[in-house]
Formats: sequence, C-alpha cells, structure tokens
Amino acid sequence: MKRIGVMLVGILGHLSSVVLTGALLLKKGIFPPTGMVTARHEFNGLDLADPKDLVFGGWDIRSGDPAEKAREFLVDTLLVNAGDHAAIQDELKAVGEYVYPGTHMNCGRAITALADGPHRQPHVPAYEILETLRANIRDFLSRSGADGVVVVNLGSTEPVLTLSAEHHLTPDAVLRCVTDDRQEFLRAGTLYSLASILENCAYINFTASNSALIPGIVKLAEDKRAPVMGNDGKTGETLVKSALSSMFPSRNLEVLSWEGFNILGNMDGKVLDDPDNKESKINSKDAVLPHILGYSPHSTVHIDYVPSLGDQKTAWDFIHFKGFLGTRMSLQFIWQGFDSMLAAPLVLDLIRLAEFARRKGEYGLMPHLASFFKAPLGVEEHRLHEQFRLLSDYVSSRAGGE
Amino acid sequence: MKRIGVMLVGILGHLSSVVLTGALLLKKGIFPPTGMVTARHEFNGLDLADPKDLVFGGWDIRSGDPAEKAREFLVDTLLVNAGDHAAIQDELKAVGEYVYPGTHMNCGRAITALADGPHRQPHVPAYEILETLRANIRDFLSRSGADGVVVVNLGSTEPVLTLSAEHHLTPDAVLRCVTDDRQEFLRAGTLYSLASILENCAYINFTASNSALIPGIVKLAEDKRAPVMGNDGKTGETLVKSALSSMFPSRNLEVLSWEGFNILGNMDGKVLDDPDNKESKINSKDAVLPHILGYSPHSTVHIDYVPSLGDQKTAWDFIHFKGFLGTRMSLQFIWQGFDSMLAAPLVLDLIRLAEFARRKGEYGLMPHLASFFKAPLGVEEHRLHEQFRLLSDYVSSRAGGE
Amino acid sequence: MKRIGVMLVGILGHLSSVVLTGALLLKKGIFPPTGMVTARHEFNGLDLADPKDLVFGGWDIRSGDPAEKAREFLVDTLLVNAGDHAAIQDELKAVGEYVYPGTHMNCGRAITALADGPHRQPHVPAYEILETLRANIRDFLSRSGADGVVVVNLGSTEPVLTLSAEHHLTPDAVLRCVTDDRQEFLRAGTLYSLASILENCAYINFTASNSALIPGIVKLAEDKRAPVMGNDGKTGETLVKSALSSMFPSRNLEVLSWEGFNILGNMDGKVLDDPDNKESKINSKDAVLPHILGYSPHSTVHIDYVPSLGDQKTAWDFIHFKGFLGTRMSLQFIWQGFDSMLAAPLVLDLIRLAEFARRKGEYGLMPHLASFFKAPLGVEEHRLHEQFRLLSDYVSSRAGGE
Amino acid sequence: MKRIGVMLVGILGHLSSVVLTGALLLKKGIFPPTGMVTARHEFNGLDLADPKDLVFGGWDIRSGDPAEKAREFLVDTLLVNAGDHAAIQDELKAVGEYVYPGTHMNCGRAITALADGPHRQPHVPAYEILETLRANIRDFLSRSGADGVVVVNLGSTEPVLTLSAEHHLTPDAVLRCVTDDRQEFLRAGTLYSLASILENCAYINFTASNSALIPGIVKLAEDKRAPVMGNDGKTGETLVKSALSSMFPSRNLEVLSWEGFNILGNMDGKVLDDPDNKESKINSKDAVLPHILGYSPHSTVHIDYVPSLGDQKTAWDFIHFKGFLGTRMSLQFIWQGFDSMLAAPLVLDLIRLAEFARRKGEYGLMPHLASFFKAPLGVEEHRLHEQFRLLSDYVSSRAGGE
Repeated sequence: MKRIGVMLVGILGHLSSVVLTGALLLKKGIFPPTGMVTARHEFNGLDLADPKDLVFGGWDIRSGDPAEKAREFLVDTLLVNAGDHAAIQDELKAVGEYVYPGTHMNCGRAITALADGPHRQPHVPAYEILETLRANIRDFLSRSGADGVVVVNLGSTEPVLTLSAEHHLTPDAVLRCVTDDRQEFLRAGTLYSLASILENCAYINFTASNSALIPGIVKLAEDKRAPVMGNDGKTGETLVKSALSSMFPSRNLEVLSWEGFNILGNMDGKVLDDPDNKESKINSKDAVLPHILGYSPHSTVHIDYVPSLGDQKTAWDFIHFKGFLGTRMSLQFIWQGFDSMLAAPLVLDLIRLAEFARRKGEYGLMPHLASFFKAPLGVEEHRLHEQFRLLSDYVSSRAGGE
Repeated sequence: MKRIGVMLVGILGHLSSVVLTGALLLKKGIFPPTGMVTARHEFNGLDLADPKDLVFGGWDIRSGDPAEKAREFLVDTLLVNAGDHAAIQDELKAVGEYVYPGTHMNCGRAITALADGPHRQPHVPAYEILETLRANIRDFLSRSGADGVVVVNLGSTEPVLTLSAEHHLTPDAVLRCVTDDRQEFLRAGTLYSLASILENCAYINFTASNSALIPGIVKLAEDKRAPVMGNDGKTGETLVKSALSSMFPSRNLEVLSWEGFNILGNMDGKVLDDPDNKESKINSKDAVLPHILGYSPHSTVHIDYVPSLGDQKTAWDFIHFKGFLGTRMSLQFIWQGFDSMLAAPLVLDLIRLAEFARRKGEYGLMPHLASFFKAPLGVEEHRLHEQFRLLSDYVSSRAGGE
Repeated sequence: MKRIGVMLVGILGHLSSVVLTGALLLKKGIFPPTGMVTARHEFNGLDLADPKDLVFGGWDIRSGDPAEKAREFLVDTLLVNAGDHAAIQDELKAVGEYVYPGTHMNCGRAITALADGPHRQPHVPAYEILETLRANIRDFLSRSGADGVVVVNLGSTEPVLTLSAEHHLTPDAVLRCVTDDRQEFLRAGTLYSLASILENCAYINFTASNSALIPGIVKLAEDKRAPVMGNDGKTGETLVKSALSSMFPSRNLEVLSWEGFNILGNMDGKVLDDPDNKESKINSKDAVLPHILGYSPHSTVHIDYVPSLGDQKTAWDFIHFKGFLGTRMSLQFIWQGFDSMLAAPLVLDLIRLAEFARRKGEYGLMPHLASFFKAPLGVEEHRLHEQFRLLSDYVSSRAGGE
Repeated sequence: MKRIGVMLVGILGHLSSVVLTGALLLKKGIFPPTGMVTARHEFNGLDLADPKDLVFGGWDIRSGDPAEKAREFLVDTLLVNAGDHAAIQDELKAVGEYVYPGTHMNCGRAITALADGPHRQPHVPAYEILETLRANIRDFLSRSGADGVVVVNLGSTEPVLTLSAEHHLTPDAVLRCVTDDRQEFLRAGTLYSLASILENCAYINFTASNSALIPGIVKLAEDKRAPVMGNDGKTGETLVKSALSSMFPSRNLEVLSWEGFNILGNMDGKVLDDPDNKESKINSKDAVLPHILGYSPHSTVHIDYVPSLGDQKTAWDFIHFKGFLGTRMSLQFIWQGFDSMLAAPLVLDLIRLAEFARRKGEYGLMPHLASFFKAPLGVEEHRLHEQFRLLSDYVSSRAGGE
C-alpha cells in the first residue's frame, strides 16, 4: 500500500480535527465526500491519491491528543455523533505518535498565549528551530513509512510581516535572516515553509499569514522543485463575494458600498480578535472587489469574536448599488456555515492536488488552485467562475497527458 | 438623422414609463446609462443605434398619456425629481401621438380587468385584431418616419397557453387558428408577435407570457428573416440565482432546498396575484436550478402582491445546503430593487441589439441574448457568467467582422 | 411520592419526544430548565408540581415506542447526544406501557395518512371512541397510580371545524352529536377534550385545531369544574410579532404591510402543507395584528413545508411602515428556532399551571395563560408584555393566598 | 396668537432640517403627524402647544440658510418633493433670521472640522461664550415675540466628558469651571445647557453627548425650576432592542450574544466615525441589555460610516440564545429607517411636552419621557412598554388634573 505523508501545522486545532476525522470517516465509508471539489466526476481522469492512503502527522504549540480534540470540537458540539467518533478513535489516537512540538516564534501575543506550559518557547535561535522542524519531517517520514510529505499550514493567522527588499526577496536573503537569527524579519510561518521546501515537501499555506510564501521562499521552491500555494483558504463570505460580485459590472450596475460583518467563535475568531492578527485576514479579503469591479467602492470588512457561535461563522454583507436614473438598491446576504466543515474538504483537495503536482514533477506556485484561496499568489483573477476554469483547464490538460 | 422605431406593448405601464423617461433623460444628458449593458466599453466596437435616435410608439389597453403616467409612476413616488420630468415633458407628450388601442384577447380576468372603458374589447375576430395591429405598425412607420421597428412586449404576464402539436408547431397551424378565429388557442401575445413578424419587425418578448414565441412563430420568424428573442426579462431574484447557484456544485456542496419569496406592489404584482397568471411567471423562474445544479432540490418560488411596496421588489431566498460530514448550513439573500428601474435599461439594450441584428441580416432566435432572460429560448445554459460569455463572443465576432 | 398523571395526544410525535426527554433529563439534573417560564424565580411562591413527579402516558395513531422516537428525533438529528439519551432510555421505554391507540376521526386526509396499519380506523361510532378514550384515562390512572391527569393535545393541526349554533354552543348539543354519531360536526380533538373533561382532567389545547375548546365544551368544563385552555402554543414568529408590534402604534408609525413567511420540515410542517389544515394555523396567527394595531394592515402568513429543515423553523417577516412626511421604512426579522425545543418547556409549564389550578379548585378557561397561546381563548389582549402581566398578577394573587 | 420659542443646537443640520420642514408642512396640512407620539388620541386631554405656534431659531457652527439645507437634505435626496418644499420656502428662509453662530468648544477634531471659516472659533473664554449664548436667547425672545423657549440640542455627538466629583457634581463647581475658563472640564454641550437653564428655558438633550446634563447641571435646573431631559434620542436599533429584549427573560431563554451592526451615511455617521465620538454613542446604547436581562451577554455595538446611505440607517442585529436542552437558536433583525425622519417627530413631541411641563411649573428631570431616550436620565427602566406606561401614567394624571 502506498503511504502519502501529510503534516499539519496546528494539528490539535479545530480545523485539523475535522480534517483528520473527515479523512478517517471517509475511509470507513461512513460519509460521502460532500464538499470535496476533487470528488467531482470531472476529476476522475486524474490519478489523484486515494484519501485512504494518507498518513497524518504535524505540529502544535498546545498539548493534547487528536482523539480528545475531535471529541471536544465535534462530539461535544453535536456536529458528529458519538458512535461515529468511536469508530475511528483508535486511528485518531495513533496520529498522536506523530505530533511534534510546534513553534510560535515572533507570532504576537494572541498566538503565544495559546501555547501551553511545555510548548511556551523561551528564546531559541531561528536556525535551531528550522533544524528541529526539518528533523521532525525526516523522523515522520522514516517512522511512518510515507513516500513523501505535503505540509499544510492550518495555524492561526499571524500578524502581518512587513516585507523588505533586503530581507525577503531572495532565498539567500531569507536564509541569512535565519542564520543570523534575525527573528524580527521572520515568523513561525516562514520557518515551516522553509523546512518543508528544504526537505522537498509540497507546501500549502491555508492561513492568512503572509510570512510563509514571501518572494524569496517562492523562488526557493522553484529552485528546489517543490510545489507551493496560498494564501488563506476561501470558505465563506469571500467565496460568496467572488461568486456574486461580477454580476454588478456585467450589468453595468455601480457598487457604491460593500460592507461585510463576520462573527465567529472558534480559536480562529479569538486570535483574530487581536487587531494585529486581524489585519492579515482583512488584507486577504480586501483584494477581491477592486479586482472584480475595476474600482474600489466603500468597503469595510469586520471580523468579530462571538464565543457562543463556536465554529459557526455568520456573515452579513450589505451591498448598496446604483442603477438606472441613479436609483439606489441593495442586496444583502447572510451566510451561516461551519467554518471548519467548509475548510476541511478543501484541505483534503489541496493535499491531493499538491501531491499530484509533486509526483508529476511540477513546482513553484500552482495558479490552477486559485479558487481555493482568498488571496491566490500569482493570480490576478478573483472571479470564482474564472478561477474554476483555471482548475478545469488544468484537469483537462493533465488528464489528456495520461 | 436616422430614426429607429420602437413599439412597446403596454406603453402606458410602469416599465414603459421608465423606458421612455430614461431614454429621454439619457438624450438630454441628465443621467448616465448606468444599468445598460450595451453602454459598457466592450460594446464600443459595434455600431449600435444611438439611444437618441429612437422614436417610440406602442399599444395599451388603458387610457392615458405617457407624460402623466411618468409623473404618476416616477415623480409622485419620488424616484425622479419634478425638475427632470419637466425637462422632458414635451417629448413624453409627443409619444402620445403614437399610442394605439391594444388587445387583451383571451388574456384572462386579471388583465381584462385592467382595460378601461373604451379599451374593453367585445368579441372581435382574431384576424381583424391582427390586421389592426399590422395597420398600426404601418401607420407608425409612415407617420414617425422611422426606418424599421423593434416591437417589445412589456405587457402583463398572461396565463399559460397550453401548446399542442396541432395548433402551435408550424406557421401555418398558428395562422390557421387566426383565420378560423380559434381564440382559445391564441392570446394577445400571439397576435402581437405575429403582427410584428409579418411586418418585418424585430420582436422581443420581455414578459413571461409563453404565447408569443411558440414554435410555429419562431419558424415564421426564420422564414420572414425577423430576429426574435424571449422570454421574461431577468432582473432580480432569478438574476442573483443564476449568478450564485453554480458556486454550490463547483464546491461539491449539495443544495437541499432553495426557497424564494418575492413581494412586490406594482401592476405586475397585481396581475401575478391571479393564480393563472402567476403560473407563467413561476414556470419561467423554475428552469434555472435544475439546469445549473444537475438535480432538482426542494424549491418553491412565491410571488405575492404587497401594494405598499409599489415598484420596490423585495425577495428573500433561503438556501439550505449540506457539506462535509453531512453538516447543514445556509445562505440567505435579500434583494431590494426597483423592478422597472432594473428592467428598463435592459429593454433599451435589447432594442439596440435587436435592431443591430436586423440591420446585419440576422434572424430567428438570438441565443447571445440569453443573459437578459429568465427562460431564454433555445438556450440550455443558465449560469449567468456563461450567458455573458455568449454575449461577449457575439460582440467579438461582430466587431471583428467590421 | 406524589404522582401527577399527564396524557399527551400524539405521544409518539416530535414535540412529545422532546417533552418526555426533557422532563427526564431535568429529573436527572443533566440540563437546567432553560426555556421554562415556571422555572423563573417569580414562580417560587407557588407550590407547583415538581417535574420529577410527572408520570406520562398518551395516545397516538402511529406505532412505535417513545425511546426509539426520541432517538430518531433527537439523537439522529444531533440535538441531544447519545450519552444523555442512554441515561434515560429505560424510563422512556417505560412510558410505552401507557401508550393507547388514538383516533383520527374526521381529521382530513393529511392526518389520516399518518395512521399506520393497526391504527387506521374503519368507521367506529363517535360514542364508542369517546368511551374508549375515557376508559384509557381510567386505566392509566389505575395502573400508573397517578392522583389525577392533565391532558395536553399535541396532535397535528386538524382542518377548521365550522361551528354552528345548533351543534356546538351547549354541552348538550355537542354530546348529542356524539350520541347520534354525527361525525361531520366533530373531530378527534372534540372527543379528546370531551373525554378529558368528563373524566375530570385538566385539558390544554396546544394545537391550532379549533374543534376541542368550542363553546359547548368550555361550558361543560365549567359545569364539571375542569380547568381548560388553548389554542395553539405560541413559540416562534407569532411570539416575536406579539412582542414587537405594539412598538409601532406606540410611536404612531403606520404599519402598511406585515408579511410573514414560515418554512419548517417536521411532521407539523407536513400536515400544514395540506391547505385544509393550514387554514386552522393561519387563523390562529391572524388575530394578533388587528388587535394590537387597531387596524388591519396588508398581511399574509405563509407556512411552507421544507423537509430538509426538520424541526428547525425559519421565519422571515417583512414589515413595511410609514413614518414622518410619508417616508417608508422597513423592519425585517429572521427567526431560526427549533420548533419542538421552543414548545416543550411551555408544555411542561402548562402542565404545572393546569395541575395547580385543578388542585386549587379553579375551572373553566384560564386567561392568565394567554401568553402561551397564539389565539388565547377568552382573551382579547395580544401584546406579549400585557399577557405576561396577566400571568404575574395571577402568580401574585395565588402566592399571596398561601 | 401664542408664540412658543424653540431654539435648536445644530439648526443647519440634517435633523433640524426635517424638524423645520416637518413642522411647516404640518402647519400647511400637507402631511399628517405620522410618527409623532403626542398626536395620538391619548394625548387629547392635555393642552399641548399647537405645532402651528412654534417659532424656530438656533445655533450652528456652519454657514448656510435653512431653506437651502432643506433642499439639499430632503429634495435632492428625493425624500420630499420639490413642490412641497416650494410651499414652505419663505417660512424656512425666515427662520434664517434667528440663526446664531454656535460653539464647538472642546468638541474634538471631528466636530471642529465641520465648522466653516467664520465659525471656526479661536480660543474664546468659556464665560464669554456662555454670555453670548445667553444673549442670543434673549435676543431671540425679544425679536421673535416668543413667550418662552425650549432649547433642544441636536448637535453632533461629542467625545465623552470624564466626570469628576470636584468639577461636575454641584452647580457651583460647574459654574466655577466656566468662570475660571477650565475648558478641559467642559464642552460645548455644557455651555448650551447652562445658558438655557440660566435663561429659564426648558432643555432637551437629544444627542448622545454626556456633557450637558451632568449632575451639577441637573441640580441647577431644579434650583432654577427648569425642566430638562436626555440623553440620546431613541430612534432605531435601540428602540427595537428595548421593545424586543424582554421577550427572552420572560420566556426564560438565555441570551448568549447580541451583536449589533449599524451603518449610516449622514453627518451623524461621519462624526461617529471618529472613535472618540463613537464612544459616547456606544455608551448610550450599551445600557439597555444588562438592565432588561439582568445579566450582560456578549454584546458589541458597531457604528460605521457608509456615505452612500445618506440618512438611511441600516442595522443588523444578531441575537444568539439558548433554550431547552441547551439548544442554540437565533433571531436576527434588519432595520432600515431614515434616521432624521424617525427622530424629527420625536423632537416635536419633546418640545410640546417640555413646554407643557414648564408651563405647569414642573422642573428638574422628566422621567416620564424615558421612552424617547436611549439613556434616560434618572430612569432605570429600559423596557419600552414600561417606559410607555410611565408616559401614559403622566398623561392620565395631568389630564385628570384639568
């Protein structure tokens, strides 16, 4: 049996719990792959990895074990029933063998506060952390018997890393920051992506953190022939925005204001309650409208932490627009989705597509994955249907090549 | 100066009032063409008619004059200010010279009730009505000095006409119904489209009535080389539905239910309050989801007459869908638009595009206009972005042909 | 230990399942009595029955057992976790001993269709059914050892029973219909309330059916000194309407239209999908606005069956109102509640308050319970806060009497 | 003819324009008094001033004339038609004779930025400003021939004034701050209320600014026998909140979170876009829930400036609550009202009721006006229906006294 390694950053978090639980329930045939793009008929022509063959490991800055976390996040909240959890409990526990201590280097107070006792790092030089992460990957490969690894960053959103020509544009510049332990120019996300690429893993940046796939690291991925893509999984309000907004210019209706209010109560929401971290997220979301409309209407994106909601994210968007004879009209939408339930199948899709790309010798950015991200690197296109066309074209070309 | 004739069925109605007022205010430069698709830069390559060159006439089953109606529908309701109305009052009055008595033959009680005294027709044979309508077109052409005519049906939604192989499939069969005065197989809409095509006009069916562009009449249009298209202008809830719904299958999310509730208070709403007429409208709206999703979720479309809303149409759509691990989530939208303000610029677009097609020698159905209609004849594609692509492709091919 | 008998009409339905499960989980201390009005501090002064002392039985026209039903309605739908269900499974099963076959006499096709094999009644004379129901009550009393019984009708909404002076105004007239087997003037609801009153039980009509507490039966309750109250538990849209609508007249704002759209997917929704049954429900809901506003704005109440929603009832209300200088404004609300979860604690409240009234020698209608009902019998007051005042006043007077 | 003087702070603002326009249109009989509480039948027993007898004047920190402002705010935005404006243009212009330069002393950058050239005050000692305002009132009285004056503060929301025992608790302490020109302990609002009370006017604080009716000034009002009341007119989201929220504790449902998002585009919105000013507003709104619920659920109030909305305020409130067996449910509402159209009739009500109180020799705070304010001074009761009861009781007692 083929074994495909997957390492998740934040493996004890809410989203990882759903990824693990979902992959195992799929394997048992308890649920169909609803919500997975790669389960659509159109993808049959590609020899994508079977979700059954995935072997999971990862890092976290908290203690705990995956089986407990799945119970806490999914059973206690009545999203998955106890019987289904019991059916996979042993496999979940087994993942615990591959959970390594993560890093929160220069991640800001909101994230650092999450790290519990043994995981609260004192100052460790960046080059040592990088070596440890690389060693973790090699250890996982050797112990799990996996063929190769896809690393997916599901960690909390870090504060924005301000980029400079001097420290972030070339592989050498970035690596020099590590060697010189210039932690102020790096964040945890940078070290994870560096470790992944240096160990020949594919790397997916599913968080909004901009520190991982900075220009110097994307170039390093090209040099090392590693496929990479990000940023920020597109699961809710931005998904709807990218599906809907092109309607207005197509009909020559002028968007005057597009105001978005997001409330959510999971850990992601808690971290985003810190203004430094929120900035990263809002930057990711903000790119969509100007690209699609061709101008920038008044637009604010709010994200607020409302603990009682748990993983249920609710967004209200108010769109004010002007039509014929100056008439003002509006469209509002209310999105009520479970954040991790929307994201987890996409994570499985990205693992399959990144593993495929790596196997086929593709490397660097993967623009065909634009539809999965709020701020797709290297892609100017934000209209959802055109992003799906990029994916369809890729599928056709690769399926044709068999 | 070129003069392009336009005859509107229902010229004293709310929508016609906005079409006339809008065309005249555009001409004066008082408003920009916001909401007109053909005013987008992309259409510059086509030599479409200048809205300034349009000459309007039409039919109605009510008495009144266009200037008064514009005041009633637009100034009294605070949609257009009194000063702007005053600036075009004379031109509006002048349109009154080309208002002919319309027909409500076999249109059901709701529409017949709208006809005031002199317009309440006793039994007149269908062939006589047809001759009168044809004579009206010739009279309009001769008196107005227009080069040709585009007829646009903006009348109220008629009850569904049940089609049969015997009476509706060929031009001869339809014409025989007229000659034999078999009014039970015809409706007013049939006579307007017949008259238009027999007089070599382009014909646009903007209402939901299915009686106009039945198969025998579409064939007649091909024989007579008249361009025609319909049915049912797509302006609100269905527009959003066709923009949004493909998001779900693209992400492999299963739509469980899509419930739509529309409330509106204009004459269109009043006529649709009659179950016979409502059926036509709901038929037009119903085609969208099954085509886009590939299956039929539970879906009901409600249309209710709420007089206080006037022309302000409000729709609430509740979309229930299933995602990963069977989780149920929802998306709701609330659309608040002025029905006639959304429709009128599209009517001007269709006039320009139909006139262009006629001038270029095109005839029969115009599938490139699919994006304008709820139930586009001869087109299976309901995804808004793909319908816009049909239009873009047409524009490119015609612009290239210059 | 005191034992207080409760017999539920429709004991295998969704709402009864929540009532039983809830009462048992309260007893075990697994959940606090959130949602129960009588659990508020204000009620401490009344010696209301302890929920621990309730003994349940009832009727149904379907087969099944209460433990299975609770699993189907609550565990499989992820509303209650499997562990909590397991903790009370034995007690639920025990209720099964007191489940008697119910009647669907003259209840219309939608309800009759619910009756499974052995419960599908052929013609049985009304007087025989009445005797059976009375015998059931006596059997339950004797076998369960309960002191007395409160009967609560939680059955599906029957079609409206048209009342006449001849058949429905006096106890004798109603009883004569039974004796003469004039089933066309009776429905199942009538027989349940008759049986209850004749057996000296308190009777609560929680459904919208008007057949139970018709004038002749209310008089019978007075004669027999039985406390009774109805109709139609107020749990969702109407609750909000009765809380909110007095704001408009208080501020001299004119409500132009109040349009309500309800979608739900439980059995109640399925039965209401039949126009005959829906009429009863809409009658109950319709009384509120005219009473509170003092005039009747345009108002429609829609109830639609959307199976995917299950017990989750969603209502969208659009309120259009006119203010200063004729300006039109709107308020919309969206209510998303679990129908049975909202109703069940009220059922427990009503049991406690009806039992208390019976114990204290009160009889006839109980107007102090108006806040619990959409169409409270004998009460003109529909403003929620005034209805709560009726209850507070009752509590003060009774607590004072101790 | 009796002449009752009214002086408005911010007389060239949006709200004042509607107050003036409305009062004049009422006088002409062009509109009925919809939205005015005191126009309800219940108030017939009080000899309230006839709106026809009001004579208006006031202050502003901007240049302009009331007729122009009414055109800009009401005619150009299609809220009032041009003909109606023309009918009262002369009377509006006449108000211009009583417009005095206002003060923005220590009002923060957002308000100071509104002052145009001649009104941008350099440092003027507080005691001089106070004297000028008092002189303005005497001048208005003498020139207009009014009997007495009600001053209503309709100015923008000032930043919060931090109160101290030393400077704000007694009339003397406050007056000493003025005499010593300690502007850091005063704001414009303080000087307006002082001037009003020292000149024996009734004073209404319709803004959210807390600087006007501080304890020392309320005591001064008692000494000088002036009736006063505030703070912050209750017109939209908070109105609905105070009407709706008591439903939850009455039904023993636990509010987990109440999140409110307000967007608006008038000058009020622009000033509130400054965090200092927003704080005042949010303080006013925040008091409601803890008082009504008896505990403080998670609750955030957002106010955002969205220029395209103009005076049309839109609020989305999301209320998350817990019911039986821990089930989580939600209620959302969307309020779309014209801010000034909702407030203006209340301003006329308050003028009438304050003038009445002054005439009847009442003084100090007027708790019977609680229903008009978000943060009613001296009143703990926030439930709308109970606040209305305070008003009804007042009306009954005063009408009885005639």
